[in-house]
Amino acid sequence: MPLAPSPSPRKSGRSCLAIVLAAGVGSRMRSTKPKALHKLAGRSMLAHVLRSVTDAGADHVVVVAGPDQETLIAEAKAVLPSAEIAIQTERRGTAHAVLAARSAIAAGYDDLLVVFADTPLVKAQTFALLRGVLADGESAVVALGFEAKEPAGYGRLLLQDGVLNAIREDRDATATERAVRLCNAGLMAIAGKGALGLLETIGAVNSQREYYLTDIVAIARAKGLPARAMIVEEDEVLGVNDRIQLAAAEAHLQDRLRAAAMKGGATLIDPASVTLSFDTELGQDVIVEPHVVFGPGVRVGNGVLIRSFSHIEGAVIGDHATIGPFARLRPGAELAQEVHIGNFVEIKAATIGAGAKINHLSYIGDASVGSKTNIGAGVITCNYDGFAKFRTEIGENAFIGSNSSLVAPVKVGGGAYIGSGSVITKDVEEGALGLARERQIEKPGWAKAFRSARRKEQ
Amino acid sequence: MPLAPSPSPRKSGRSCLAIVLAAGVGSRMRSTKPKALHKLAGRSMLAHVLRSVTDAGADHVVVVAGPDQETLIAEAKAVLPSAEIAIQTERRGTAHAVLAARSAIAAGYDDLLVVFADTPLVKAQTFALLRGVLADGESAVVALGFEAKEPAGYGRLLLQDGVLNAIREDRDATATERAVRLCNAGLMAIAGKGALGLLETIGAVNSQREYYLTDIVAIARAKGLPARAMIVEEDEVLGVNDRIQLAAAEAHLQDRLRAAAMKGGATLIDPASVTLSFDTELGQDVIVEPHVVFGPGVRVGNGVLIRSFSHIEGAVIGDHATIGPFARLRPGAELAQEVHIGNFVEIKAATIGAGAKINHLSYIGDASVGSKTNIGAGVITCNYDGFAKFRTEIGENAFIGSNSSLVAPVKVGGGAYIGSGSVITKDVEEGALGLARERQIEKPGWAKAFRSARRKEQ
Amino acid sequence: MPLAPSPSPRKSGRSCLAIVLAAGVGSRMRSTKPKALHKLAGRSMLAHVLRSVTDAGADHVVVVAGPDQETLIAEAKAVLPSAEIAIQTERRGTAHAVLAARSAIAAGYDDLLVVFADTPLVKAQTFALLRGVLADGESAVVALGFEAKEPAGYGRLLLQDGVLNAIREDRDATATERAVRLCNAGLMAIAGKGALGLLETIGAVNSQREYYLTDIVAIARAKGLPARAMIVEEDEVLGVNDRIQLAAAEAHLQDRLRAAAMKGGATLIDPASVTLSFDTELGQDVIVEPHVVFGPGVRVGNGVLIRSFSHIEGAVIGDHATIGPFARLRPGAELAQEVHIGNFVEIKAATIGAGAKINHLSYIGDASVGSKTNIGAGVITCNYDGFAKFRTEIGENAFIGSNSSLVAPVKVGGGAYIGSGSVITKDVEEGALGLARERQIEKPGWAKAFRSARRKEQ
Repeated sequence: MPLAPSPSPRKSGRSCLAIVLAAGVGSRMRSTKPKALHKLAGRSMLAHVLRSVTDAGADHVVVVAGPDQETLIAEAKAVLPSAEIAIQTERRGTAHAVLAARSAIAAGYDDLLVVFADTPLVKAQTFALLRGVLADGESAVVALGFEAKEPAGYGRLLLQDGVLNAIREDRDATATERAVRLCNAGLMAIAGKGALGLLETIGAVNSQREYYLTDIVAIARAKGLPARAMIVEEDEVLGVNDRIQLAAAEAHLQDRLRAAAMKGGATLIDPASVTLSFDTELGQDVIVEPHVVFGPGVRVGNGVLIRSFSHIEGAVIGDHATIGPFARLRPGAELAQEVHIGNFVEIKAATIGAGAKINHLSYIGDASVGSKTNIGAGVITCNYDGFAKFRTEIGENAFIGSNSSLVAPVKVGGGAYIGSGSVITKDVEEGALGLARERQIEKPGWAKAFRSARRKEQ
Repeated sequence: MPLAPSPSPRKSGRSCLAIVLAAGVGSRMRSTKPKALHKLAGRSMLAHVLRSVTDAGADHVVVVAGPDQETLIAEAKAVLPSAEIAIQTERRGTAHAVLAARSAIAAGYDDLLVVFADTPLVKAQTFALLRGVLADGESAVVALGFEAKEPAGYGRLLLQDGVLNAIREDRDATATERAVRLCNAGLMAIAGKGALGLLETIGAVNSQREYYLTDIVAIARAKGLPARAMIVEEDEVLGVNDRIQLAAAEAHLQDRLRAAAMKGGATLIDPASVTLSFDTELGQDVIVEPHVVFGPGVRVGNGVLIRSFSHIEGAVIGDHATIGPFARLRPGAELAQEVHIGNFVEIKAATIGAGAKINHLSYIGDASVGSKTNIGAGVITCNYDGFAKFRTEIGENAFIGSNSSLVAPVKVGGGAYIGSGSVITKDVEEGALGLARERQIEKPGWAKAFRSARRKEQ
Repeated sequence: MPLAPSPSPRKSGRSCLAIVLAAGVGSRMRSTKPKALHKLAGRSMLAHVLRSVTDAGADHVVVVAGPDQETLIAEAKAVLPSAEIAIQTERRGTAHAVLAARSAIAAGYDDLLVVFADTPLVKAQTFALLRGVLADGESAVVALGFEAKEPAGYGRLLLQDGVLNAIREDRDATATERAVRLCNAGLMAIAGKGALGLLETIGAVNSQREYYLTDIVAIARAKGLPARAMIVEEDEVLGVNDRIQLAAAEAHLQDRLRAAAMKGGATLIDPASVTLSFDTELGQDVIVEPHVVFGPGVRVGNGVLIRSFSHIEGAVIGDHATIGPFARLRPGAELAQEVHIGNFVEIKAATIGAGAKINHLSYIGDASVGSKTNIGAGVITCNYDGFAKFRTEIGENAFIGSNSSLVAPVKVGGGAYIGSGSVITKDVEEGALGLARERQIEKPGWAKAFRSARRKEQ
């Protein structure tokens, strides 16, 4: 789905173009999927980055994709329909990739943000601050850096008196430069007006014969233009190149989401065992027991108890409801206040009225259940006939006996009873008893005889 | 439920009063619930602290509550019916809170323990040792301290030659004092006889105009009375002021419970994924697979295998039983030895005989199941008619066919068979076959015709 | 099951005998089971060690067991039928234990590996390297060592100019020796030809009156024979003496397995919440959501999605299948490509055809399900009559209505329909409708009357 409008785009009066480099194939992911489509907290890395630059006030976004990345392009358009797609036809380095967005750069935005789709944890606030540093210092370039725990392999930010003189690749660094622990995260803000000139000056005179964006700093400095660096925590600029790093990024993002949920007034008894989505909303005094998974699109009211082993996606849960353990809420589940959903129960595309109870071993799909209705154990809405889905409508204060099957389309009126084990294929009127059950017979001694016969056989 | 009698109250011959300060509202919890009612390992922080002081030999306990904390008072009375409740009508500091228990203090106990309901991890043994230090040193006060990893913000314990001279609030500390890493945990043992005099001497001459209990040390010293400090690990005196700290305390307590379970001879394959309750009892050679949650009131025999994704509360499990995966045992489940409870099975208020098997997709509630009886997949005891609960009684060696519904009240005799898919509403006698099933009919070609009709519609 | 043939036994042209010391009772485990039978990642510690020495090229393996360890011996024979069992009748130290394998030692292998069944994490590669060091240096002994974080309690490796002079027990060490952090892991490679002579020279002149294998180093050195040490990470030589160490070893092994899975191209969203088995095989672009448990014998194809709370043992899963959440696959489940197994579904000993869907609350056991068949919610194969198991066979493109019971032995033909709630006891032919259902009746006003009667009773 497209991004919701950004809640508070930081408006500085300056226009901003964001270029999202997403063409990376990510061979170390060992995946048939473009790297930027791998997900974190329920949405693609690309979507995370698009959200962050949009929240940081980007007026226009160009996504630089590779030549055969239809799925990537589709995701970019789905998430941010206004995004422009630029294709990098050959892989000739980061500066070359940025120049795939040449026409957008030439349009002359005040700020140019260059970001990487595989560096998905950078906060919108960080991008906004980066733009602020660019504006305040009237710099040509501001690079994002971090103090690396293990700097080997990273480019180093070479600073002198607060001015960034160059970004030196690890392999080109002198011993003194290599001792610098301040490393390049890859992300940059560039003053838009002169950007094209600087970018086009970058050459490919290096062992890889590639055009390195990092060279822009030395080029700007050689022209006497100011350059700066802005420092963030290493965790925030974690890059994802393989699935171990993907898991590390997920862990970091989950910790952020969990802390926010707890600060907002939810109890996570064992936070590490709760998986949140980027958009999970938990009300005040929600208690989440250990081992709960939230997929995208979940909104939970106040005072809700979510018991262990619950799996919830695309669902709305009203105040003071109780969910689980072992409950599954699927997209379209809308629960009013004080609903009880118990164990081994699946709810899909169904509206459940206030105070209704569905406590055991049931499947309620494509249905509406009236308030205070009690659904017995093992009740199933038969919503599919092999071709299409049909609806089941149950009124208020009804009582659906255990192990019943409600063959949709079907209506059960308010206050009606359904006898246990019935297969209901016709509507049941308000206040009536619906029943479809064979009379019980008994064959005395049958079991004894059966057993002795079976024993003889064996 | 009230606390069980303390297994070994440490008796020193000295009488002891414990004052539990529980009036904190805990605004950083962002909760409608008093802070001390938030739970750790299945019981409230207040209950943990009441248990610890009782186990440390307190003869009388006063809980100091705020003026509108009915739920807190109810919990205190439920957990420790003998507890006295004192109301702190205004919030004027910790010493003022302690003096809400003035009449109990005046009764002249030998030892006075002052403890905080939001410091829930202190062991009974620590309280007992604190009393011991008080008695041995004939001190007026013994404060509990810890070496803080980050001392900023904590009061410092100022010691000289082993004597505690004062507790200095962080904001009042000199640079030298601030360098001290020994911090005040807030808990104290005070010699009961002189306590009231010292407490009443505490003034409110400070920026907050509050009466600080910590001033008691300097007052005692000024009178020439000895004061001491006792040091524990920082983790043990972790205070809970927000939900992140609540989660940290839970994690610490869980680790303690898990280590005790493993030392006792249970295997926890992935201890971090197992949630225990304060009172979980696991026998020898119990194996707990990953992802298991124990609520309060569980007792597990020897040699039991508890498979992954099991959720167990208020249940007794006999030796060599096998539970799960995906089993839910609710309060009142009593399983004899060698019972098998399988996946997607819920047991509530039911006695299950030795060797009985309930392996798939069943709900057994308000029931008794005889030994060696086999309950088929999808069997449901229909124990509720919308008004009351009724019992199902199944004898030994019975066989309940799959997808049957047993409509309580109903009895199935020993050795009886129930045909699959039957709705049993009347008792079935011993050794008989009970059956309630329609004869199968076949409509040849119907499915083909139905499909082609449906395809045309679409 | 016996070990599969070692994929690449490292062949050096040298013959190798491995002696596995497994007689330890492990009293600190507090278990009725021999220590080496406790499991890690789904197989016994003994099996792990037998696998490693076999993979390192051992031509013959002797397992040294205690006198009453039938279950241990049975496991050794089951895992490695060619293993020789030697009984250590008295516990007189490690050298005495090794000499229980005297006749095998006397057979004169080139290399003798001495390993401990309670040190289960040592890699085959490490054993192979140890043999390499032995061969290269023409040493009499090579001991495996590690830099201990906390050396107290461990024997120290005393090296001089790269030569191992002795292994000094902690209690016999001088202060200088105690400062050495290089500790003895217990495992050794010994040159086979002279081994027996050295081993028989070891005496029991020490406080415990035991024969210590570690003395072999000093004895070899005294004879002018070279000895060496090889150093590995402490984690790899972690010894298991209690259940806390067992859990630590499990955690370490799981991390190894998880990293290998991720490097191989599987996404583990929350790796710490996924339990793997020693033999779990995951294809490329498999996504494993949080909270999934793999028992032994699982093979997962490419592009499979395994959702949260799934429990999978002994199952084969075809490409692009979707499993869970809350799915249980038991041994003998064989799923073709694009099968969907949904929530609260158990599959056992069943073949499921391509594209078939079993999405809700079902038990399918001892069955075959044809491709593209749709199994409705709550369907149960009644495969057991209290005596034996029977098979259910369902054709392709069939549609089994919800809450049906299929009483085996029974066949449902291709393209057939089964009406919801039917108990099917006879075969249903291809393209037919099978139905066993009572006609629905309605009693108008019954529910209202029932309610008012019940209200009066109460």
